[in-house]
Amino acid sequence: MGLSNRGRAMLSEGSPLVEAHFAVAADPWSPENPDGYINLGTAENHLLFDLLEPRLTAARPVLEGDTHYQQLYGAASFRAELARFLGQLQGDEVDPEDLVVVGGTSVVLEILAHALCDPGEAIIVPTPYYAGLDDDFGGRAGVRVFPAPLDGFTLTADAIARAIASARSAGLTVRAVCLLSPDNPMGQVYDETTLRAVAEVVMAEGLQLIVDEIYAGSSYGAPFVSAATLVPDVVPPERLHLGWGFAKDFGLSGFKVGVLRTRDPEVRAVARQLAMFGPVSSDTQVFLRDLLADEEWTATLLRENVARLAAAYENVVKVLGEHGIDVLPAAAGLFVWIDLRPWLAEPTFEAELALWRRLFDEAKVNISPGAVFHSSEPGWFRLCFATSADTVRTAVERLGQTLSQA
Amino acid sequence: MGLSNRGRAMLSEGSPLVEAHFAVAADPWSPENPDGYINLGTAENHLLFDLLEPRLTAARPVLEGDTHYQQLYGAASFRAELARFLGQLQGDEVDPEDLVVVGGTSVVLEILAHALCDPGEAIIVPTPYYAGLDDDFGGRAGVRVFPAPLDGFTLTADAIARAIASARSAGLTVRAVCLLSPDNPMGQVYDETTLRAVAEVVMAEGLQLIVDEIYAGSSYGAPFVSAATLVPDVVPPERLHLGWGFAKDFGLSGFKVGVLRTRDPEVRAVARQLAMFGPVSSDTQVFLRDLLADEEWTATLLRENVARLAAAYENVVKVLGEHGIDVLPAAAGLFVWIDLRPWLAEPTFEAELALWRRLFDEAKVNISPGAVFHSSEPGWFRLCFATSADTVRTAVERLGQTLSQA
Repeated sequence: MGLSNRGRAMLSEGSPLVEAHFAVAADPWSPENPDGYINLGTAENHLLFDLLEPRLTAARPVLEGDTHYQQLYGAASFRAELARFLGQLQGDEVDPEDLVVVGGTSVVLEILAHALCDPGEAIIVPTPYYAGLDDDFGGRAGVRVFPAPLDGFTLTADAIARAIASARSAGLTVRAVCLLSPDNPMGQVYDETTLRAVAEVVMAEGLQLIVDEIYAGSSYGAPFVSAATLVPDVVPPERLHLGWGFAKDFGLSGFKVGVLRTRDPEVRAVARQLAMFGPVSSDTQVFLRDLLADEEWTATLLRENVARLAAAYENVVKVLGEHGIDVLPAAAGLFVWIDLRPWLAEPTFEAELALWRRLFDEAKVNISPGAVFHSSEPGWFRLCFATSADTVRTAVERLGQTLSQA
Repeated sequence: MGLSNRGRAMLSEGSPLVEAHFAVAADPWSPENPDGYINLGTAENHLLFDLLEPRLTAARPVLEGDTHYQQLYGAASFRAELARFLGQLQGDEVDPEDLVVVGGTSVVLEILAHALCDPGEAIIVPTPYYAGLDDDFGGRAGVRVFPAPLDGFTLTADAIARAIASARSAGLTVRAVCLLSPDNPMGQVYDETTLRAVAEVVMAEGLQLIVDEIYAGSSYGAPFVSAATLVPDVVPPERLHLGWGFAKDFGLSGFKVGVLRTRDPEVRAVARQLAMFGPVSSDTQVFLRDLLADEEWTATLLRENVARLAAAYENVVKVLGEHGIDVLPAAAGLFVWIDLRPWLAEPTFEAELALWRRLFDEAKVNISPGAVFHSSEPGWFRLCFATSADTVRTAVERLGQTLSQA
């Protein structure tokens, strides 16, 4: 009875991915618990802790000033290190004043939804897309995610142009196109030609370009190209809004640290204002600042991340192949888009969900059905492989066994 | 040109307190920089670092699980420790499931504004009030802070009843009354009789009660009474929403950790949903969890905090007295409400601002003019004294010297 109307509208049933994540967390598989659940449904990077551990567990040189108020959009000393680091990742010179540090890339995206769109307006997203966007854009911000269905899972400028036209025909005001680059859930890396062609459409249509590059440092199969390199040739600086975070490339998903880079002074001003509602602990800022300042350590981490992801990808494809499971070739990220169409009872999303539940209950393996990502074709699943080869092998063997009993 | 309408509405000129805070931070007074600025304008607790330092700078037992996703409304292990700790502070049994951990009490209040109010609806606040509420309730959430001017700085049920009636006469829908208890900026502690009388009015009028108890552990002159003790006698459990945080009582303002306690299952569900946009780093959660788990250490910190605040209060009142400056007697918090009416050129808020600027420019001391807190009588200022006696003495001597040249 206390709830406002908008509060009531935010009551949701919860994401099935999140629920499954915490269900399996209560009874996780390990060599000592061989009947436990294996979670390959959450995009977390489990390959880096041996490198992080010595830093995380060491004594920390926290000063009194570190315990008091900083700029609520990120301490200047942290943004300075971030700018240098992002400059390398994005292949561009980054001004620390253009950075707004907040509690994760979800916060970056929610802030952009508020700053760029009024409620009911639309952001176009290539589809299938990372399910979290529905909350990030659509939750409190009330912005419509309008899907741009891809042609055979390939991003094209045409697909974006068609979606913009459809949204407008449906009476929607379109404000932006948002790319996840590299992409989630399919692990695709966009080359410069593709990015340029898409950006040209976005600019020609008078829209803003949002690019979430949270997997920028996790491209193991193709060179990552940042949208920052399209400025100023294709995109005026003030119309590009870039996101990045420590969750994936650094394996620190629990730290919830994201950063927005925007060169529109007004969007930046609003983002700084809203950053106060999603700030990052100065404690964690100091820790990450000192990590980044150690350039050699950071370079090693990123190099190891790419090498380990490449090996893990090779392993998962091989093991899946042993059970006759095909994948869409991937080049980045912590996951692969696998083809379980042959095992659907019928080509429907009901059958896809039924298969998911059987794999969850019988194989005790959590992967994510394509419907979660608004896939247009039933039977595809996202499988996260950035964990030990043993874990992946055990999980895939269980999946194969359950599938063979179909 | 990229900005949405709501984004444009959020563009603000920035808080004068925040601007002054960072201006003085660039040239701070110290024995080595005797001409620097002294900031007594920011409610930070500088009395505890010697106790915190050994814990902050020690090696930390961070585990792999600590680096990955937790419940976005606070890890279960942290909420368990918080529940035990808050139970002592609030004199009540606290269920960890009723706690939502977010990035500061501003986030707690913004979430409540969204969950309890639709845009344009009102929350009644005893006035003068902590200036941040205008942003917390009014910024993105679009909720009106409706002032309840006090009678001679004393909270009464009548003042609240009058404000509710005025707001309704003005055509506003009132949804809640929000108390800061202990109060900011005047450092008052509310006794049980006062709290009960106010709560009775709030309940009789069918409203929700929000109580921000961020200074609960900083009552040095009177026993703190939590609004939790009014449940269920005066207030049904689901109509009370309590806030607390580590900024004041633990001196960790930079850590930005706040906690909401609500027993309305729907409000809690919305708060959990919105917590994803203001999460706390798992790194910091682990650190604070382990602090709280050390009950002896925490008890010592709280005891020292109260003792040091009491001494600092006694000192500031004495030193102010030496310069003929009166104060409203305070019993809690990091500040005192000082009476500079004798030094106003005329009894207006323009004269108050002029005096503030002169003290800032000539004495190089930053204190906060009452207008910032929507005081109804010009000439009162908030002075924060939770710092070394030397700093306070130097600042007050400078203030006295400038005032004597009026």
